[in-house]
Amino acid sequence: MLTLYISPGSCSRASHIALAESGLDYQVSLIRFAEGEQRSEAYLKVNPKGRVPALVTDKGVLTETVALLPYIAQLVPEKNLAPLDDPYLFAKMQAFNAYLSSTVHINHAHGRRGARWADNAASHADMIAKVPKTMRDSFALIEDGLVEGQFVLGDTFSVADAYLFVMTGWLESDHVDMAEFPKVAAHYRRIEMRPAVQRVLAEEAAAKPAA
Amino acid sequence: MLTLYISPGSCSRASHIALAESGLDYQVSLIRFAEGEQRSEAYLKVNPKGRVPALVTDKGVLTETVALLPYIAQLVPEKNLAPLDDPYLFAKMQAFNAYLSSTVHINHAHGRRGARWADNAASHADMIAKVPKTMRDSFALIEDGLVEGQFVLGDTFSVADAYLFVMTGWLESDHVDMAEFPKVAAHYRRIEMRPAVQRVLAEEAAAKPAA
Ligand SMILES: N[C@@H](CCC(=O)N[C@@H](CS)C(=O)NCC(=O)O)C(=O)O
Ligand SMILES: N[C@@H](CCC(=O)N[C@@H](CS)C(=O)NCC(=O)O)C(=O)O
Repeated sequence: MLTLYISPGSCSRASHIALAESGLDYQVSLIRFAEGEQRSEAYLKVNPKGRVPALVTDKGVLTETVALLPYIAQLVPEKNLAPLDDPYLFAKMQAFNAYLSSTVHINHAHGRRGARWADNAASHADMIAKVPKTMRDSFALIEDGLVEGQFVLGDTFSVADAYLFVMTGWLESDHVDMAEFPKVAAHYRRIEMRPAVQRVLAEEAAAKPAA
Repeated sequence: MLTLYISPGSCSRASHIALAESGLDYQVSLIRFAEGEQRSEAYLKVNPKGRVPALVTDKGVLTETVALLPYIAQLVPEKNLAPLDDPYLFAKMQAFNAYLSSTVHINHAHGRRGARWADNAASHADMIAKVPKTMRDSFALIEDGLVEGQFVLGDTFSVADAYLFVMTGWLESDHVDMAEFPKVAAHYRRIEMRPAVQRVLAEEAAAKPAA
């Protein structure tokens, strides 16, 4: 049995969707950010980085969205959640995922986790002010790069679509209107309709501790 | 023929080492950061993100270190540059690489590329001041996680070793003494001695434009 540590709505949602799409048996375990549970002694034993996602497998714990997404795909090759037999296309997918994790997610994080990189309140305010611009710039690049097909890789759904869906879902809180990016917005609506995605959204909404 | 776009000493060095270790035919093409060449019209056609590395293959251009490293390994499976037949170990390696790209590299970048995320000089100074702490924290975690073996994955060299080597090499400029992390320092010296690494260091030193 796989256990995924999540915080509702966070980047762990991408791996959560990949698991739901996989048909594998899994359970989720909730980490309450509001209570600082990601830095609890118990959780640091699972993931010393103090972040979600973390996936507990029978071989050990795996972290990092960019590693979990293809791993989940590899567990169920018959589901075709990643182009496992085409190294070039696989690298294309991973380049897309890596851009989300090392650029887009980082841009977003400056709006709420500025204390990671600077100590003064004025610096945090300066970072917060720039988030709409950096997110807009990143999504302009994604919009340009998205092919006319339905999915990140063209005609076939892959775990990269789950990840893009989560990042697009953050735009509103970053004060960017996804309607500025018509292909991205259409992609968001397309992915949102998938039954596995609907299940994950319902499960995370139910799990979310009252604010 | 593969062409890798690099800037000497930058993160592109990890992919450069992977190519040298692969035995594949390749050439490097220099992007002069001092002249802003990464944002030139010609280079933005290669990589619209305006960053290195970018790898030109006969199928198209690939970017992102986390995607290039396993791709290069997959081109030469007989060289065993990544655990390609073991999805769990492959995910372990990718989690390590993803941590370097989405956390360690980002920490480092706040010391010189703060303008990406904030506009005021005072914010940049605040970011610069915090780099030694964030790099130290990240390397403490790497030190703890490194097994007693010779390489990131234990007994076998992989592309993750090339990437760690490059990040460790940045510590001095971030005002962190690698001697604080004995396993990391021993790893650095071990990787530095590899003939392919020596060739890359010589090639990048020769390519470096006079300051
Ligand atoms: N590079 C990691 C980043 C993980 C990450 O930053 N997760 C956030 C949620 S989106 C987190 O756990 N934040 C809690 C904190 O910073 O305390 C990945 O892509 O999985
Ligand atoms: N996520 C990318 C990051 C690439 C990156 O930031 N490269 C730096 C060099 S280490 C660069 O091109 N910087 C030029 C600039 O920011 O103008 C990767 O890991 O490949």
